[in-house]
Amino acid sequence: MLLRLLSSASRAIAAKPHPPQTLAAAAAGATSTTRKLAAMAGNREAFRVAVGNTLERRLFYVPSFKIYGGVAGLYDYGPPGCAVKANVLAFWRQHFVLEEGMLEVDCPCVTPEVVLKASGHVEKFTDLMVKDEKTGSCYRADHLLKDFCKEKLENDNTLSPQKEEELNHILAVLDDLSAEQLGAKIKEYGIAAPDTKNPLSDPYPFNLMFQTSIGPSGLSTGYMRPETAQGIFVNFKDLYYYNGNKLPFAAAQIGQAFRNEISPRQGLLRVREFTLAEIEHFVDPEDKSHPKFSDVSDLEFLMFPREDQLTGRSATRVRLGEAVSEGTVNNETLGFFIGRVYLFLTQLGIDKDRLRFRQHLPNEMAHYAADCWDAEIECSYGWIECVGIADRSAYDLRAHSDKSGVPLEAHEKFAEPREVEKLVITPSKKELGLAFKGDQKMVLEALEAMGETEALGMKAALESKGDVEFKVCTLGKDVTIKRNMVSINMEKKKEHQRKFTPSVIEPSFGIGRIIYCLFEHCFYQRTGKTDDEQLNVFRFPPLVAPIKCTVFPLVKVEKFDVVAKKISKALTTAGISHIIDITGTSIGKRYARTDEIGVPLAITVDSTTSVTVRDRDSKDQIRVEVDEVALVVKEVTDGQSTWADIMWRYPAHTALATDEEEASET
Amino acid sequence: MLLRLLSSASRAIAAKPHPPQTLAAAAAGATSTTRKLAAMAGNREAFRVAVGNTLERRLFYVPSFKIYGGVAGLYDYGPPGCAVKANVLAFWRQHFVLEEGMLEVDCPCVTPEVVLKASGHVEKFTDLMVKDEKTGSCYRADHLLKDFCKEKLENDNTLSPQKEEELNHILAVLDDLSAEQLGAKIKEYGIAAPDTKNPLSDPYPFNLMFQTSIGPSGLSTGYMRPETAQGIFVNFKDLYYYNGNKLPFAAAQIGQAFRNEISPRQGLLRVREFTLAEIEHFVDPEDKSHPKFSDVSDLEFLMFPREDQLTGRSATRVRLGEAVSEGTVNNETLGFFIGRVYLFLTQLGIDKDRLRFRQHLPNEMAHYAADCWDAEIECSYGWIECVGIADRSAYDLRAHSDKSGVPLEAHEKFAEPREVEKLVITPSKKELGLAFKGDQKMVLEALEAMGETEALGMKAALESKGDVEFKVCTLGKDVTIKRNMVSINMEKKKEHQRKFTPSVIEPSFGIGRIIYCLFEHCFYQRTGKTDDEQLNVFRFPPLVAPIKCTVFPLVKVEKFDVVAKKISKALTTAGISHIIDITGTSIGKRYARTDEIGVPLAITVDSTTSVTVRDRDSKDQIRVEVDEVALVVKEVTDGQSTWADIMWRYPAHTALATDEEEASET
Repeated sequence: MLLRLLSSASRAIAAKPHPPQTLAAAAAGATSTTRKLAAMAGNREAFRVAVGNTLERRLFYVPSFKIYGGVAGLYDYGPPGCAVKANVLAFWRQHFVLEEGMLEVDCPCVTPEVVLKASGHVEKFTDLMVKDEKTGSCYRADHLLKDFCKEKLENDNTLSPQKEEELNHILAVLDDLSAEQLGAKIKEYGIAAPDTKNPLSDPYPFNLMFQTSIGPSGLSTGYMRPETAQGIFVNFKDLYYYNGNKLPFAAAQIGQAFRNEISPRQGLLRVREFTLAEIEHFVDPEDKSHPKFSDVSDLEFLMFPREDQLTGRSATRVRLGEAVSEGTVNNETLGFFIGRVYLFLTQLGIDKDRLRFRQHLPNEMAHYAADCWDAEIECSYGWIECVGIADRSAYDLRAHSDKSGVPLEAHEKFAEPREVEKLVITPSKKELGLAFKGDQKMVLEALEAMGETEALGMKAALESKGDVEFKVCTLGKDVTIKRNMVSINMEKKKEHQRKFTPSVIEPSFGIGRIIYCLFEHCFYQRTGKTDDEQLNVFRFPPLVAPIKCTVFPLVKVEKFDVVAKKISKALTTAGISHIIDITGTSIGKRYARTDEIGVPLAITVDSTTSVTVRDRDSKDQIRVEVDEVALVVKEVTDGQSTWADIMWRYPAHTALATDEEEASET
Repeated sequence: MLLRLLSSASRAIAAKPHPPQTLAAAAAGATSTTRKLAAMAGNREAFRVAVGNTLERRLFYVPSFKIYGGVAGLYDYGPPGCAVKANVLAFWRQHFVLEEGMLEVDCPCVTPEVVLKASGHVEKFTDLMVKDEKTGSCYRADHLLKDFCKEKLENDNTLSPQKEEELNHILAVLDDLSAEQLGAKIKEYGIAAPDTKNPLSDPYPFNLMFQTSIGPSGLSTGYMRPETAQGIFVNFKDLYYYNGNKLPFAAAQIGQAFRNEISPRQGLLRVREFTLAEIEHFVDPEDKSHPKFSDVSDLEFLMFPREDQLTGRSATRVRLGEAVSEGTVNNETLGFFIGRVYLFLTQLGIDKDRLRFRQHLPNEMAHYAADCWDAEIECSYGWIECVGIADRSAYDLRAHSDKSGVPLEAHEKFAEPREVEKLVITPSKKELGLAFKGDQKMVLEALEAMGETEALGMKAALESKGDVEFKVCTLGKDVTIKRNMVSINMEKKKEHQRKFTPSVIEPSFGIGRIIYCLFEHCFYQRTGKTDDEQLNVFRFPPLVAPIKCTVFPLVKVEKFDVVAKKISKALTTAGISHIIDITGTSIGKRYARTDEIGVPLAITVDSTTSVTVRDRDSKDQIRVEVDEVALVVKEVTDGQSTWADIMWRYPAHTALATDEEEASET
């Protein structure tokens, strides 16, 4: 995932600094979209506060080390958040690792410097930073400029159209600005430190890796890995062997990654430590077809190709098969993963209308990358990059091969030996020795190192003229080569195998970002007892719900407690996470309490023979025998049946009006 | 888990430097046990090499960053190891978090200094280190002394009985030696740097935490957490609230922990980064009973109480209920967790005869700890501490309460208000002002701060003598207090609740150590085609087996491939991890290959209507219909049925002799 090495380090798995629609619009010369966005911002903000309050109050996640004042960019998942995360990861493992037969590995976070030098992170994994010249406080240079431009565009009514266009242009090209250009703009606009209004230093690169030292000597530098991918690349040789020396195969890893962000923002979206789930699919660069592509080719969803972004169009629904056959998506394997990612996200509960696949613009893509698509999810912060899916060609394996000296390559054995034409250069040692004496070796090596074009050129010249001037770099001069000094021929040879560096196609998932977007997509409010009472609900699918079911004795009597415990035991045996709430609170309040953490089903014990089961979203209830209820819950939460299927089979139960209406915040 | 703060930092979750039996024996004056152990070492070593070779060749785990020469103490789990680890963690979550209704949290690894100052790690999480005075190479001081003593005892036949006793004594008390004592012994024995024979520095403490810097300023020190427990303690207040302000409750966390070991040793047993699973069970110190203790009280297993260790006895089988009722184990809750840990480990596949619970000796235990037991598992390295189960009293919560100023306490509301006698100290401001003028405030505060004993002493003295000398520390002198200056009385008050700091009982699991011991306990060799061919088998229970089932078409024909794919699809739907091996290799070789990674069942497709299922350990085979086979596999691997149950229901299939005998290393 080297994309981020281009200009802004954390870009590959980072919130886009502004929604690409704005970007595209700005690039196409539009100047008024920003104001419209500003008008929407109020509602978004209110929604975000409502969902955020619920998440924090119910301990989905909280700032870490809160009793000590917290640390920016570090969050704890509390019990319901931790359960959602565990469910998301378990599904990821099922959907990708098990279903696709991937090789999962688990490598350490502590990484020696040499690995991250090879990958380019030591040199280039940086963001541009400016310092308050008096207090030493640090800021991201691009953030300051962006905030300045947006603030002006939103609040300054005196801006000339030219100025407006200039500011919009800056927003559009922000990611491409060099340190010098950023510094010049900050000076030109007189941007000062936001907290103190002190002058700022020139921008300079700050490496985002947490540095440490491995072992007691203090001499061996290490870093906390900024991604999990490198652990897979350095194991390529073993994994290839494990796979029977066959391509294609995919390796996968789930684990922590670390980025010492200059200024963490936006809650779970830009943090200093996070869980990544990454896949490296190794494939023959000459054959990127995928045998299971037909399984996903009929999927249709929002795609936002490069062309549409540059011409100011919006994302449109496209059939995946078409996107690949028309060449919009570079190859079948990349397309296959785009499809699988779509299925993964929507099955988790991501709204398919707020999910799009955006192709990287040329300036976002590394020179070696064949094609890159981001799964972006829309939330109150805009369109957020949550999964990057990149065809990174052979870059990573070559980098580690070069640095370590260990060849990281695959070979294809031919069924039958193939006849190939090969250039053969045979210098005559004797003639070269006579002509060049001490320089003989260097001339000889330079001749042998010629590429095909150069050699064939020399062959032609020797045949026509008899001699030719030849530059020997190691000697720093030209020498004259004569016909008798070298023979150059295309010869036919038999080859038994082909050696090559595999391409890698990398889907990389920011788990925390996906979870945050899921929280927003699943959250809604409904009116309670009184019109102005808003009850919070997370409509998590059973797959990700932190708890699948609650058990409530209607009133506090022993016989109901006994039944509740019996049901609890049956649920445990069936492997269904649940809680019993025996507080004396009204049943309506207890329903509201579990709706708020997204529990799909609630069992109320109101007799010793049968109980009611309530669906969170419809609030419908059915009556089920005590002995049967655990299996009914399992059927729905395992996804074998829907609530609608179940409703059919059991008698409806009409709740007392008071029950449902009584709910209020607890 | 502050135990390790006592003297040797990594002791709490570290390999004991020598088997405690030796320790106990040595403490009791024995001098010849070491030689016996040396004789055993040969077999152990050979076994360890055999299992280690298989583990590394089949990519269970490998040294990390191998293509760059590796880093000591860092390992990667390859595909089968990673799957075993995921299975162990999933079972841990099921067995502890879900079954006991624990609150699971997920906190970052990057931890600010203040948290680890409060916990004591910044000051005391150290090991004693010596440096080669010329090269700067570092060694653990106790390791050098231990290696010296063991080497002498094993190989020096000229040792006098006195010398032998002295060296054995050092081995016994090694953990208690101060830096000075260690340094003196190293000097006395002339121990030099092992690699260079250069002289060594004096021992000095080296902090084992990986240090880093949080944020861009470089001013905020952070560490990679050395355990996961602190993340739970700092969240106590929120978790207590989440639990409805009720005790007891348990919080749990699975995650990476980091220790910058001076000299990592023994493969997965002493590493620099590892996965911990920790439980913090918060309980009222006045009531450590456990409602579910009766579920485990009839378990009988090897226990090794303090007394038995000190008197040179061995571990004996004890009924857990008795150990608690007789007070050997301090309380029911601690006992409950010992029982649950026993069930957890044995269900994973740990041999119950090589598992014991060893109580900490007084010198191993922190002053505040009520009782500590380690689950130790015997492997080729000796008895290895894999789980620590400690009653840590209120230490951790108090430490964070003091440092953060945030009270971390629980309250018990009384059903009825209780009348309590309370000391009330009422100084007379007027009289103190007259007598002490400017010093009045400090005298007053000192009077109010008196403890009960001191106050009652003053009351008695004032009543008998009329005045008393009183030391005011803030003034640095004594003052004379007269009867009219203060009234001191025990008064009756009504109290509605009791406030207290909960005790914490902490089971802490070193997951990598458990997995390594599991590897050893599950490994065996059986004779292959020829007598000298040894085939490797891991007899993993289905619960932890990395792959549950393999599918082999007997020969390479399309109709068998079609059946194999059909079965594979059914297995995927049933959620069973499996692989298809379509290599042309003989079926015997393919069986051997999957035995070696511990796959419990193999399906061989030898017809289009029915297939054979083979059990890894008995090598028995049955014949099952194609449509039924996925369900049969699920039944066994889910643990609903044993292989013996299944054997009954299906016709046996007799393998061709050649199949099974043909196996050989591939």
